[in-house]
Amino acid sequence: MTTGAHTMADAAAMRRALELATRGPSRGVNPRVGCVILSRAGDVIAEGWHRGAGTAHAEVDALSKLAPGAAEGATAVVTLEPCNHTGRTGPCALALIEAGIARVVYAVSDPGDHSAGGAQRLRDAGIEVDGGVLADEAGAMLEDWLFAARHRRPRVIVKWASSLDGRAAAADGTSQWITGPAARADVHRRRAAADAIAVGTGTVLADDPALTARDPGGQFYDVQPVPVVFGRREVPADASITRHPHAPMFFTGTDLAADLEQLQRRGIRSLFIEGGPTLASAFVAAGLVDELLVYVAPALLGGPRLALGDLGITSIDGAKRFTFTDIERLGDDVLLVAHPASGLDTLRYSGNATERN
Amino acid sequence: MTTGAHTMADAAAMRRALELATRGPSRGVNPRVGCVILSRAGDVIAEGWHRGAGTAHAEVDALSKLAPGAAEGATAVVTLEPCNHTGRTGPCALALIEAGIARVVYAVSDPGDHSAGGAQRLRDAGIEVDGGVLADEAGAMLEDWLFAARHRRPRVIVKWASSLDGRAAAADGTSQWITGPAARADVHRRRAAADAIAVGTGTVLADDPALTARDPGGQFYDVQPVPVVFGRREVPADASITRHPHAPMFFTGTDLAADLEQLQRRGIRSLFIEGGPTLASAFVAAGLVDELLVYVAPALLGGPRLALGDLGITSIDGAKRFTFTDIERLGDDVLLVAHPASGLDTLRYSGNATERN
Ligand SMILES: NC(=O)c1ccc[n+]([C@@H]2O[C@H](COP(=O)([O-])OP(=O)(O)OC[C@H]3O[C@@H](n4cnc5c(N)ncnc54)[C@H](OP(=O)(O)O)[C@@H]3O)[C@@H](O)[C@H]2O)c1
Ligand SMILES: NC(=O)c1ccc[n+]([C@@H]2O[C@H](COP(=O)([O-])OP(=O)(O)OC[C@H]3O[C@@H](n4cnc5c(N)ncnc54)[C@H](OP(=O)(O)O)[C@@H]3O)[C@@H](O)[C@H]2O)c1
Repeated sequence: MTTGAHTMADAAAMRRALELATRGPSRGVNPRVGCVILSRAGDVIAEGWHRGAGTAHAEVDALSKLAPGAAEGATAVVTLEPCNHTGRTGPCALALIEAGIARVVYAVSDPGDHSAGGAQRLRDAGIEVDGGVLADEAGAMLEDWLFAARHRRPRVIVKWASSLDGRAAAADGTSQWITGPAARADVHRRRAAADAIAVGTGTVLADDPALTARDPGGQFYDVQPVPVVFGRREVPADASITRHPHAPMFFTGTDLAADLEQLQRRGIRSLFIEGGPTLASAFVAAGLVDELLVYVAPALLGGPRLALGDLGITSIDGAKRFTFTDIERLGDDVLLVAHPASGLDTLRYSGNATERN
Repeated sequence: MTTGAHTMADAAAMRRALELATRGPSRGVNPRVGCVILSRAGDVIAEGWHRGAGTAHAEVDALSKLAPGAAEGATAVVTLEPCNHTGRTGPCALALIEAGIARVVYAVSDPGDHSAGGAQRLRDAGIEVDGGVLADEAGAMLEDWLFAARHRRPRVIVKWASSLDGRAAAADGTSQWITGPAARADVHRRRAAADAIAVGTGTVLADDPALTARDPGGQFYDVQPVPVVFGRREVPADASITRHPHAPMFFTGTDLAADLEQLQRRGIRSLFIEGGPTLASAFVAAGLVDELLVYVAPALLGGPRLALGDLGITSIDGAKRFTFTDIERLGDDVLLVAHPASGLDTLRYSGNATERN
């Protein structure tokens, strides 16, 4: 039933569906999805998008704008494979079938265990289905959500700033500023792009960080990461994080994998870990790092305050191996970006277009 | 008496003088210098170069090839300002005056305390003098010698290889191989370019390094750095360095500045320090580092074996500040090259051409 052919018109409609998707919330358990319904003549007759957990999915939102029967023989163009899952809303696949849709075009396959299988269900109902249209664009938008859905945890980014000799602070604990303004601005941009930002209680007690994302002028970015604190120690009632636009989340950190699962359930798709050394080392040792951001200042400090502590590695063969994926000069400093060398499968934005390769 | 004008013919003759200079030894207390004598008609009538301490300087070598009186009214083109110093040979300025040379063209000013002043002496004798011709090319060839002459010590390059978290080895001491073949090949190329290569006794006793410069096929490069060991401990009689093509030099390291002065007196213009952490830290703490080469592997090790130990720095304000001058990807690894941020004056290849700017 799959023709495998998709047209310029499909791509144009998908581009519109992607625009609609961005109207949804950037964070949450559900992905941002957009949908366009095309008449047999190829005209847009309805548009929809998903507004977050508990609200209508994009397909249902679009169909709801049409008079009964108006979708008969129409084409639905949707950024994510229609779901096959009865959750707080019914399965979209069924809604499309019942509306009499003749053809469905989608970008990215649904990776969920419960929700996947929508394309097959549509085909079984005799509907023509084409996947993989603008899969890269849609995949980029859904990257963190897809990661979280596949791995049942947020994508974990570990960041630190250090001197060339791997020190995070001088012997007396002073570390402001190891790196310069360009590096700090980059950190804040990346904070704003993450769903949540985490530190250990050690950093809260030592530095009382605000954990907000601010532009170089000190203004808050529109979207702020949720502050997360790991550790059993009490955080002072007047700590800066209590004045964060989002209520902080607290975890003991005794079972990091379980904590991450919790975070994903609460809609956190990416977690930006800002330290300190103890918490960062714990995530590295547990093999729970998906991206490493090391801001290196052209300075030497020596002394006992390391960016990373012990990892339980005894021999060189036990080294945690990464791959440098990006190297950037930021003012006087350098940012080294690395990803696990083997470990996690790379994201594949597969619709059935890629299955055919 | 300085015309300030130099011609295409001057540059062509200087290019030839630079070629002649490269016939001299690349290492030693004296610089590589070449000289060409041009007739009044502009033809090359003699060529000379310096073959090392105790032998004739380039100008005298060239003049010696001419019959008495043949240099009368001729032009001497020489890569370094003629010396004004009576050492093991007489001052070249005087030799040029006595030979009846009418004009002297040189590339780089002599930075020596005793030997400088040659250009002035020539002018005082009524000779037309033009400096700064191809100063950059000549300066690049003389870079390490100029540095050593100005600072009375070799240029010190400190190199280490570390993981992204600043570790030089795993907890059990294993460090082969933190970095990959491309990084190791780069190290060997730079070893070959240095006059001497140094380690502390700790590294000799732990690793028994050969301290030779080898190409990726394991063949020795033509020029080998002299091995230097710092420390008071005895080195085993059968240590690998005893089979090095050059006899090793030994220093206690209790007064690094004095040791460096000794090295310069013995003709070492550049010293490549390969570790370990204790020796490297001592050079950094003493402010005796002119270039830092940090080979960073995309790996994490944790643990106690750091690339650099303590530097006696207590607060962030005391950080040793450098500037990144080059960042290279070498296979899977990254090389960060840094130079002291303030400290040492940058090399200026000044002839009187630059004085006129
Ligand atoms: N240069 C930089 O980039 C940078 C960034 C951040 C911080 N810092 C510096 O780091 C210093 C603080 O260091 P730190 O290491 O004490 O701070 P930390 O890593 O923020 O906090 C350590 C605490 O994290 C908690 N934790 C939660 N889960 C854990 C787990 N699985 N394993 C281990 N610990 C876990 C523990 O708290 P409980 O004991 O309460 O259970 C532990 O004591 C400060 O001086 C700060 O300035 C530097
Ligand atoms: N990854 C790398 O790039 C790399 C490179 C080299 C070595 N390494 C590792 O480093 C380890 C050896 O470490 P290490 O620190 O003991 O070796 P080291 O720095 O080579 O030797 C230390 C010794 O240097 C001598 N020394 C001379 N002048 C000194 C001064 N001014 N201040 C302090 N010490 C001075 C002292 O010897 P005396 O006590 O005899 O006076 C001192 O004990 C080995 O495990 C080796 O594998 C790693």
